[in-house]
Amino acid sequence: MPVVTAALDLDTRGHADVHDITDPLAGLIAKSGLANGIVTVFCPSSTSAVTTIEFEPGCVSDLRRMFDEIAPADRGYAHDDTWGDANGYSHMRAALLKASLTVPFVNGRLTLGTWQQIIYVDFDNRPRRRELVVQMIGE
Amino acid sequence: MPVVTAALDLDTRGHADVHDITDPLAGLIAKSGLANGIVTVFCPSSTSAVTTIEFEPGCVSDLRRMFDEIAPADRGYAHDDTWGDANGYSHMRAALLKASLTVPFVNGRLTLGTWQQIIYVDFDNRPRRRELVVQMIGE
Amino acid sequence: MPVVTAALDLDTRGHADVHDITDPLAGLIAKSGLANGIVTVFCPSSTSAVTTIEFEPGCVSDLRRMFDEIAPADRGYAHDDTWGDANGYSHMRAALLKASLTVPFVNGRLTLGTWQQIIYVDFDNRPRRRELVVQMIGE
Repeated sequence: MPVVTAALDLDTRGHADVHDITDPLAGLIAKSGLANGIVTVFCPSSTSAVTTIEFEPGCVSDLRRMFDEIAPADRGYAHDDTWGDANGYSHMRAALLKASLTVPFVNGRLTLGTWQQIIYVDFDNRPRRRELVVQMIGE
Repeated sequence: MPVVTAALDLDTRGHADVHDITDPLAGLIAKSGLANGIVTVFCPSSTSAVTTIEFEPGCVSDLRRMFDEIAPADRGYAHDDTWGDANGYSHMRAALLKASLTVPFVNGRLTLGTWQQIIYVDFDNRPRRRELVVQMIGE
Repeated sequence: MPVVTAALDLDTRGHADVHDITDPLAGLIAKSGLANGIVTVFCPSSTSAVTTIEFEPGCVSDLRRMFDEIAPADRGYAHDDTWGDANGYSHMRAALLKASLTVPFVNGRLTLGTWQQIIYVDFDNRPRRRELVVQMIGE
Protein backbone atom coordinates (compact mmCIF):
# COMPACT_ATOMS: atom_id res chain seq x y z
CA MET A 1 0.00 0.00 0.00
CA PRO A 2 1.87 3.00 -1.24
CA VAL A 3 1.92 6.66 -0.30
CA VAL A 4 1.61 9.04 -3.25
CA THR A 5 2.42 12.72 -2.74
CA ALA A 6 1.47 15.34 -5.29
CA ALA A 7 1.20 19.11 -5.51
CA LEU A 8 -1.64 21.38 -6.55
CA ASP A 9 -0.71 24.86 -7.76
CA LEU A 10 -3.09 27.78 -7.47
CA ASP A 11 -2.95 31.47 -8.24
CA THR A 12 -5.10 33.24 -5.69
CA ARG A 13 -6.31 36.80 -5.23
CA GLY A 14 -6.60 36.76 -1.43
CA HIS A 15 -9.44 38.38 0.59
CA ALA A 16 -11.24 35.06 1.14
CA ASP A 17 -10.71 33.93 -2.44
CA VAL A 18 -12.52 30.57 -2.71
CA HIS A 19 -11.34 27.92 -5.20
CA ASP A 20 -13.17 24.70 -6.01
CA ILE A 21 -10.33 22.15 -6.08
CA THR A 22 -12.49 19.03 -6.45
CA ASP A 23 -11.68 18.29 -10.09
CA PRO A 24 -7.88 18.62 -9.80
CA LEU A 25 -7.97 16.45 -6.67
CA ALA A 26 -10.02 13.81 -8.48
CA GLY A 27 -7.44 13.93 -11.25
CA LEU A 28 -4.56 13.37 -8.83
CA ILE A 29 -6.35 10.38 -7.30
CA ALA A 30 -6.90 8.88 -10.74
CA LYS A 31 -3.25 9.46 -11.58
CA SER A 32 -2.10 7.79 -8.33
CA GLY A 33 -3.45 4.44 -9.43
CA LEU A 34 -4.92 3.88 -5.97
CA ALA A 35 -8.46 2.53 -5.71
CA ASN A 36 -9.32 2.94 -2.02
CA GLY A 37 -7.89 5.17 0.67
CA ILE A 38 -7.71 8.71 1.93
CA VAL A 39 -6.48 11.92 0.40
CA THR A 40 -5.13 14.60 2.75
CA VAL A 41 -5.11 18.14 1.36
CA PHE A 42 -2.79 20.36 3.33
CA CYS A 43 -2.05 24.10 3.00
CA PRO A 44 1.60 24.86 3.85
CA SER A 45 0.48 28.34 4.86
CA SER A 46 -0.84 30.11 7.94
CA THR A 47 -3.30 32.34 6.06
CA SER A 48 -5.38 29.82 4.11
CA ALA A 49 -7.52 26.77 4.80
CA VAL A 50 -9.52 23.96 3.24
CA THR A 51 -13.04 22.62 3.80
CA THR A 52 -16.11 21.41 1.88
CA ILE A 53 -19.14 23.42 0.79
CA GLU A 54 -21.81 23.55 -1.89
CA PHE A 55 -19.74 25.61 -4.28
CA GLU A 56 -22.19 28.14 -5.69
CA PRO A 57 -21.97 31.95 -5.56
CA GLY A 58 -24.51 32.29 -2.73
CA CYS A 59 -22.65 29.99 -0.33
CA VAL A 60 -19.33 31.58 -1.24
CA SER A 61 -20.74 35.02 -0.45
CA ASP A 62 -22.26 33.79 2.82
CA LEU A 63 -18.95 32.16 3.80
CA ARG A 64 -17.13 35.46 3.30
CA ARG A 65 -19.66 37.29 5.46
CA MET A 66 -19.35 34.67 8.23
CA PHE A 67 -15.57 35.14 8.39
CA ASP A 68 -15.92 38.93 8.11
CA GLU A 69 -17.97 38.71 11.29
CA ILE A 70 -15.80 36.17 13.15
CA ALA A 71 -12.51 37.96 12.41
CA PRO A 72 -13.16 41.38 10.85
CA ALA A 73 -10.48 42.94 8.68
CA ASP A 74 -11.15 46.46 9.95
CA ARG A 75 -10.00 46.21 13.55
CA GLY A 76 -6.67 45.96 15.34
CA TYR A 77 -4.71 42.72 15.68
CA ALA A 78 -1.67 42.15 17.89
CA HIS A 79 -0.05 40.32 14.97
CA ASP A 80 -0.24 43.48 12.86
CA ASP A 81 1.14 45.66 15.65
CA THR A 82 4.28 43.52 15.64
CA TRP A 83 4.75 42.63 11.99
CA GLY A 84 2.95 45.42 10.13
CA ASP A 85 1.61 43.15 7.39
CA ALA A 86 -2.05 43.91 8.22
CA ASN A 87 -3.19 40.32 7.79
CA GLY A 88 -3.82 39.34 11.42
CA TYR A 89 -7.44 38.61 10.50
CA SER A 90 -6.21 36.21 7.76
CA HIS A 91 -4.21 34.26 10.35
CA MET A 92 -7.19 34.00 12.69
CA ARG A 93 -9.56 32.73 10.01
CA ALA A 94 -7.05 30.17 8.76
CA ALA A 95 -6.28 28.89 12.28
CA LEU A 96 -10.01 28.43 12.94
CA LEU A 97 -10.94 26.74 9.64
CA LYS A 98 -7.67 24.74 9.65
CA ALA A 99 -5.13 23.88 6.98
CA SER A 100 -5.93 20.18 6.63
CA LEU A 101 -8.78 18.10 5.23
CA THR A 102 -8.90 14.32 4.84
CA VAL A 103 -11.44 12.73 2.49
CA PRO A 104 -11.88 9.01 1.73
CA PHE A 105 -12.00 7.72 -1.84
CA VAL A 106 -13.50 4.41 -2.97
CA ASN A 107 -13.03 2.76 -6.36
CA GLY A 108 -10.96 5.75 -7.37
CA ARG A 109 -13.69 8.28 -6.58
CA LEU A 110 -13.97 10.87 -3.83
CA THR A 111 -16.83 10.04 -1.46
CA LEU A 112 -18.35 13.52 -1.71
CA GLY A 113 -22.06 14.27 -1.67
CA THR A 114 -23.81 15.39 -4.82
CA TRP A 115 -23.81 19.07 -3.82
CA GLN A 116 -20.49 19.06 -1.99
CA GLN A 117 -17.15 20.34 -3.26
CA ILE A 118 -13.70 20.64 -1.71
CA ILE A 119 -12.60 24.26 -1.48
CA TYR A 120 -9.39 26.10 -0.78
CA VAL A 121 -9.89 29.49 0.87
CA ASP A 122 -7.09 32.03 0.67
CA PHE A 123 -7.67 34.48 3.52
CA ASP A 124 -4.49 36.48 2.90
CA ASN A 125 -4.74 40.15 1.95
CA ARG A 126 -2.92 39.96 -1.37
CA PRO A 127 -2.53 37.71 -4.43
CA ARG A 128 -0.40 34.64 -3.81
CA ARG A 129 1.06 31.72 -5.70
CA ARG A 130 0.10 28.67 -3.61
CA GLU A 131 1.24 25.07 -3.74
CA LEU A 132 -0.95 22.67 -1.77
CA VAL A 133 0.28 19.28 -0.57
CA VAL A 134 -1.97 16.43 -1.74
CA GLN A 135 -1.10 13.07 -0.24
CA MET A 136 -2.91 9.82 -0.93
CA ILE A 137 -2.57 6.66 1.16
CA GLY A 138 -4.38 3.52 0.11
CA GLU A 139 -4.32 0.40 -1.94
CA MET B 1 -2.20 -3.15 5.57
CA PRO B 2 -5.70 -2.99 4.21
CA VAL B 3 -8.24 -0.24 3.73
CA VAL B 4 -11.70 -1.07 5.07
CA THR B 5 -14.63 1.13 4.05
CA ALA B 6 -17.97 0.94 5.82
CA ALA B 7 -21.15 2.97 6.07
CA LEU B 8 -23.04 4.34 9.06
CA ASP B 9 -26.74 5.06 8.56
CA LEU B 10 -28.54 7.67 10.61
CA ASP B 11 -32.04 9.10 10.68
CA THR B 12 -31.75 12.74 11.70
CA ARG B 13 -34.24 15.46 12.56
CA GLY B 14 -32.13 18.45 11.42
CA HIS B 15 -31.88 21.79 13.27
CA ALA B 16 -28.49 20.92 14.82
CA ASP B 17 -29.54 17.40 15.69
CA VAL B 18 -26.56 15.88 17.53
CA HIS B 19 -25.90 12.12 17.42
CA ASP B 20 -23.30 10.28 19.49
CA ILE B 21 -21.77 7.89 16.94
CA THR B 22 -18.96 6.56 19.14
CA ASP B 23 -20.43 3.09 19.74
CA PRO B 24 -21.28 2.29 16.10
CA LEU B 25 -17.80 3.49 15.08
CA ALA B 26 -16.18 1.28 17.71
CA GLY B 27 -18.24 -1.60 16.33
CA LEU B 28 -17.05 -0.95 12.77
CA ILE B 29 -13.41 -0.89 13.92
CA ALA B 30 -13.88 -4.19 15.76
CA LYS B 31 -15.50 -5.68 12.65
CA SER B 32 -12.63 -4.48 10.41
CA GLY B 33 -10.17 -6.78 12.15
CA LEU B 34 -7.60 -3.97 12.25
CA ALA B 35 -5.67 -3.39 15.47
CA ASN B 36 -3.91 -0.07 14.91
CA GLY B 37 -4.61 2.78 12.53
CA ILE B 38 -6.92 5.66 11.83
CA VAL B 39 -10.62 5.91 11.18
CA THR B 40 -11.86 8.77 9.01
CA VAL B 41 -15.52 9.69 9.43
CA PHE B 42 -16.77 11.70 6.49
CA CYS B 43 -20.17 13.31 5.84
CA PRO B 44 -21.04 13.23 2.12
CA SER B 45 -23.20 16.30 2.71
CA SER B 46 -22.80 20.07 2.77
CA THR B 47 -25.16 20.66 5.70
CA SER B 48 -23.70 18.42 8.40
CA ALA B 49 -20.40 17.91 10.20
CA VAL B 50 -18.50 15.78 12.69
CA THR B 51 -16.43 16.58 15.79
CA THR B 52 -15.86 15.40 19.36
CA ILE B 53 -17.52 16.65 22.54
CA GLU B 54 -18.52 15.52 26.01
CA PHE B 55 -21.89 14.19 24.95
CA GLU B 56 -24.26 15.32 27.69
CA PRO B 57 -27.40 17.49 27.33
CA GLY B 58 -25.70 20.64 28.63
CA CYS B 59 -22.87 20.60 26.08
CA VAL B 60 -25.31 19.73 23.30
CA SER B 61 -27.49 22.71 24.24
CA ASP B 62 -24.44 25.00 24.46
CA LEU B 63 -23.21 23.80 21.06
CA ARG B 64 -26.56 24.69 19.48
CA ARG B 65 -26.44 28.15 21.00
CA MET B 66 -22.88 28.71 19.75
CA PHE B 67 -23.90 27.90 16.17
CA ASP B 68 -27.13 29.92 16.50
CA GLU B 69 -24.87 32.87 17.25
CA ILE B 70 -22.20 32.19 14.61
CA ALA B 71 -24.69 31.57 11.77
CA PRO B 72 -28.23 32.52 12.89
CA ALA B 73 -31.18 30.87 11.18
CA ASP B 74 -33.30 34.04 11.25
CA ARG B 75 -31.42 36.29 8.85
CA GLY B 76 -30.90 36.46 5.11
CA TYR B 77 -28.40 34.28 3.23
CA ALA B 78 -27.35 34.68 -0.39
CA HIS B 79 -27.69 30.91 -0.78
CA ASP B 80 -31.37 31.14 0.12
CA ASP B 81 -31.98 34.04 -2.26
CA THR B 82 -30.80 31.83 -5.12
CA TRP B 83 -32.08 28.40 -4.19
CA GLY B 84 -35.02 29.10 -1.89
CA ASP B 85 -34.34 26.18 0.42
CA ALA B 86 -33.85 28.39 3.49
CA ASN B 87 -30.86 26.41 4.80
CA GLY B 88 -28.02 28.83 4.04
CA TYR B 89 -27.23 28.87 7.77
CA SER B 90 -26.91 25.06 7.69
CA HIS B 91 -24.32 25.30 4.92
CA MET B 92 -22.29 27.89 6.84
CA ARG B 93 -22.22 25.89 10.06
CA ALA B 94 -21.22 22.71 8.23
CA ALA B 95 -18.45 24.44 6.23
CA LEU B 96 -17.02 25.87 9.47
CA LEU B 97 -17.18 22.70 11.58
CA LYS B 98 -16.14 20.54 8.59
CA ALA B 99 -17.32 17.22 7.23
CA SER B 100 -14.28 15.13 8.18
CA LEU B 101 -12.76 13.78 11.40
CA THR B 102 -9.80 11.41 11.74
CA VAL B 103 -9.24 9.52 14.99
CA PRO B 104 -6.47 7.00 15.76
CA PHE B 105 -7.26 3.59 17.22
CA VAL B 106 -4.83 1.36 19.11
CA ASN B 107 -5.34 -2.30 19.95
CA GLY B 108 -8.75 -2.08 18.34
CA ARG B 109 -9.90 0.81 20.53
CA LEU B 110 -10.55 4.46 19.72
CA THR B 111 -8.06 6.71 21.53
CA LEU B 112 -10.79 8.94 22.96
CA GLY B 113 -10.68 10.57 26.37
CA THR B 114 -12.94 9.36 29.15
CA TRP B 115 -15.44 12.19 28.69
CA GLN B 116 -15.11 12.52 24.92
CA GLN B 117 -17.48 11.21 22.27
CA ILE B 118 -17.58 11.47 18.47
CA ILE B 119 -20.66 13.32 17.29
CA TYR B 120 -22.44 13.85 14.02
CA VAL B 121 -24.28 17.18 13.80
CA ASP B 122 -27.01 17.56 11.21
CA PHE B 123 -27.43 21.30 10.65
CA ASP B 124 -30.02 20.92 7.88
CA ASN B 125 -33.52 22.33 8.39
CA ARG B 126 -35.47 19.10 7.91
CA PRO B 127 -35.29 15.39 8.73
CA ARG B 128 -32.80 13.47 6.59
CA ARG B 129 -31.66 9.92 6.00
CA ARG B 130 -27.86 10.11 6.19
CA GLU B 131 -25.16 7.65 5.25
CA LEU B 132 -21.71 8.51 6.60
CA VAL B 133 -18.51 7.14 5.10
CA VAL B 134 -16.33 5.37 7.67
CA GLN B 135 -12.94 4.36 6.39
CA MET B 136 -10.26 2.57 8.40
CA ILE B 137 -6.61 2.30 7.39
CA GLY B 138 -4.21 0.31 9.50
CA GLU B 139 -2.71 -3.03 10.27
CA MET C 1 3.77 0.05 5.62
CA PRO C 2 3.59 0.23 9.37
CA VAL C 3 1.55 2.21 11.84
CA VAL C 4 3.60 3.86 14.58
CA THR C 5 1.81 5.24 17.63
CA ALA C 6 3.53 7.55 20.08
CA ALA C 7 2.59 9.89 22.91
CA LEU C 8 3.39 13.54 23.53
CA ASP C 9 3.23 14.74 27.13
CA LEU C 10 2.49 18.35 27.99
CA ASP C 11 2.01 20.32 31.18
CA THR C 12 -0.52 23.04 30.46
CA ARG C 13 -1.85 26.02 32.38
CA GLY C 14 -5.32 26.15 30.79
CA HIS C 15 -7.17 29.36 29.79
CA ALA C 16 -6.28 28.97 26.09
CA ASP C 17 -2.69 27.99 26.82
CA VAL C 18 -1.03 27.61 23.41
CA HIS C 19 1.90 25.20 22.92
CA ASP C 20 4.02 24.93 19.79
CA ILE C 21 4.35 21.16 19.35
CA THR C 22 6.09 21.20 15.97
CA ASP C 23 9.56 20.19 17.18
CA PRO C 24 8.48 17.23 19.32
CA LEU C 25 6.26 16.02 16.45
CA ALA C 26 9.17 16.27 14.02
CA GLY C 27 11.22 14.26 16.49
CA LEU C 28 8.60 11.52 16.70
CA ILE C 29 8.45 11.29 12.90
CA ALA C 30 12.23 10.98 12.72
CA LYS C 31 12.14 8.28 15.40
CA SER C 32 9.43 6.33 13.54
CA GLY C 33 11.77 5.59 10.66
CA LEU C 34 9.00 6.44 8.18
CA ALA C 35 9.86 8.60 5.18
CA ASN C 36 6.48 9.48 3.68
CA GLY C 37 3.00 9.48 5.16
CA ILE C 38 0.67 11.28 7.50
CA VAL C 39 0.84 12.10 11.17
CA THR C 40 -2.44 12.43 13.06
CA VAL C 41 -2.28 14.42 16.29
CA PHE C 42 -5.27 13.70 18.49
CA CYS C 43 -6.28 15.20 21.87
CA PRO C 44 -8.02 12.58 24.04
CA SER C 45 -9.83 15.43 25.76
CA SER C 46 -13.01 17.46 25.27
CA THR C 47 -11.50 20.77 26.38
CA SER C 48 -8.49 21.12 24.08
CA ALA C 49 -7.76 21.17 20.35
CA VAL C 50 -5.03 21.29 17.72
CA THR C 51 -4.45 23.45 14.64
CA THR C 52 -1.71 25.35 12.81
CA ILE C 53 -0.75 29.01 13.15
CA GLU C 54 2.20 31.35 12.82
CA PHE C 55 3.39 30.85 16.39
CA GLU C 56 4.35 34.33 17.53
CA PRO C 57 2.98 36.27 20.54
CA GLY C 58 0.72 38.49 18.42
CA CYS C 59 -1.13 35.62 16.74
CA VAL C 60 -1.41 33.78 20.05
CA SER C 61 -2.98 36.86 21.65
CA ASP C 62 -5.33 37.36 18.70
CA LEU C 63 -6.36 33.69 18.84
CA ARG C 64 -7.30 34.03 22.50
CA ARG C 65 -9.40 37.10 21.76
CA MET C 66 -11.20 35.33 18.91
CA PHE C 67 -12.22 32.47 21.19
CA ASP C 68 -13.09 34.88 24.02
CA GLU C 69 -15.58 36.37 21.59
CA ILE C 70 -16.92 33.12 20.10
CA ALA C 71 -17.42 31.39 23.47
CA PRO C 72 -16.94 33.90 26.32
CA ALA C 73 -15.92 32.60 29.72
CA ASP C 74 -18.11 35.10 31.60
CA ARG C 75 -21.59 33.94 30.68
CA GLY C 76 -23.81 31.00 31.58
CA TYR C 77 -23.46 27.55 30.01
CA ALA C 78 -25.90 24.68 30.37
CA HIS C 79 -22.93 22.37 30.89
CA ASP C 80 -21.93 24.34 33.98
CA ASP C 81 -25.48 24.36 35.37
CA THR C 82 -25.38 20.56 35.37
CA TRP C 83 -21.80 19.75 36.29
CA GLY C 84 -20.61 22.84 38.16
CA ASP C 85 -17.11 22.75 36.73
CA ALA C 86 -17.40 26.19 35.08
CA ASN C 87 -15.66 25.12 31.87
CA GLY C 88 -18.60 25.01 29.47
CA TYR C 89 -16.81 27.62 27.36
CA SER C 90 -13.75 25.33 27.17
CA HIS C 91 -15.90 22.52 25.78
CA MET C 92 -17.44 24.78 23.14
CA ARG C 93 -14.10 26.10 21.91
CA ALA C 94 -12.62 22.60 21.73
CA ALA C 95 -15.62 21.18 19.87
CA LEU C 96 -15.37 23.99 17.31
CA LEU C 97 -11.59 23.89 16.75
CA LYS C 98 -11.59 20.06 16.94
CA ALA C 99 -9.33 17.54 18.61
CA SER C 100 -7.67 16.14 15.49
CA LEU C 101 -5.16 17.35 12.91
CA THR C 102 -3.58 15.34 10.09
CA VAL C 103 -0.41 16.61 8.40
CA PRO C 104 1.55 14.91 5.59
CA PHE C 105 5.30 14.36 5.87
CA VAL C 106 7.69 13.78 2.95
CA ASN C 107 11.26 12.53 3.18
CA GLY C 108 10.86 12.51 6.95
CA ARG C 109 9.86 16.18 7.16
CA LEU C 110 6.53 17.79 7.99
CA THR C 111 5.14 19.65 4.95
CA LEU C 112 4.56 22.87 6.91
CA GLY C 113 4.99 26.36 5.51
CA THR C 114 7.89 28.50 6.61
CA TRP C 115 5.79 30.53 9.05
CA GLN C 116 3.46 27.74 10.13
CA GLN C 117 3.60 25.74 13.33
CA ILE C 118 1.40 23.00 14.82
CA ILE C 119 -0.16 24.12 18.07
CA TYR C 120 -2.00 22.47 20.93
CA VAL C 121 -4.51 24.75 22.64
CA ASP C 122 -5.67 23.85 26.13
CA PHE C 123 -8.98 25.65 26.64
CA ASP C 124 -9.64 24.15 30.07
CA ASN C 125 -9.89 26.43 33.11
CA ARG C 126 -7.08 24.88 35.17
CA PRO C 127 -3.60 23.39 34.76
CA ARG C 128 -3.60 19.88 33.31
CA ARG C 129 -1.20 17.07 32.54
CA ARG C 130 -1.98 16.12 28.93
CA GLU C 131 -0.95 13.15 26.83
CA LEU C 132 -1.60 13.58 23.11
CA VAL C 133 -1.87 10.65 20.72
CA VAL C 134 0.54 10.92 17.78
CA GLN C 135 0.05 8.30 15.13
CA MET C 136 2.07 7.99 11.94
CA ILE C 137 1.06 5.90 8.93
CA GLY C 138 3.36 5.66 5.95
CA GLU C 139 6.25 3.89 4.34
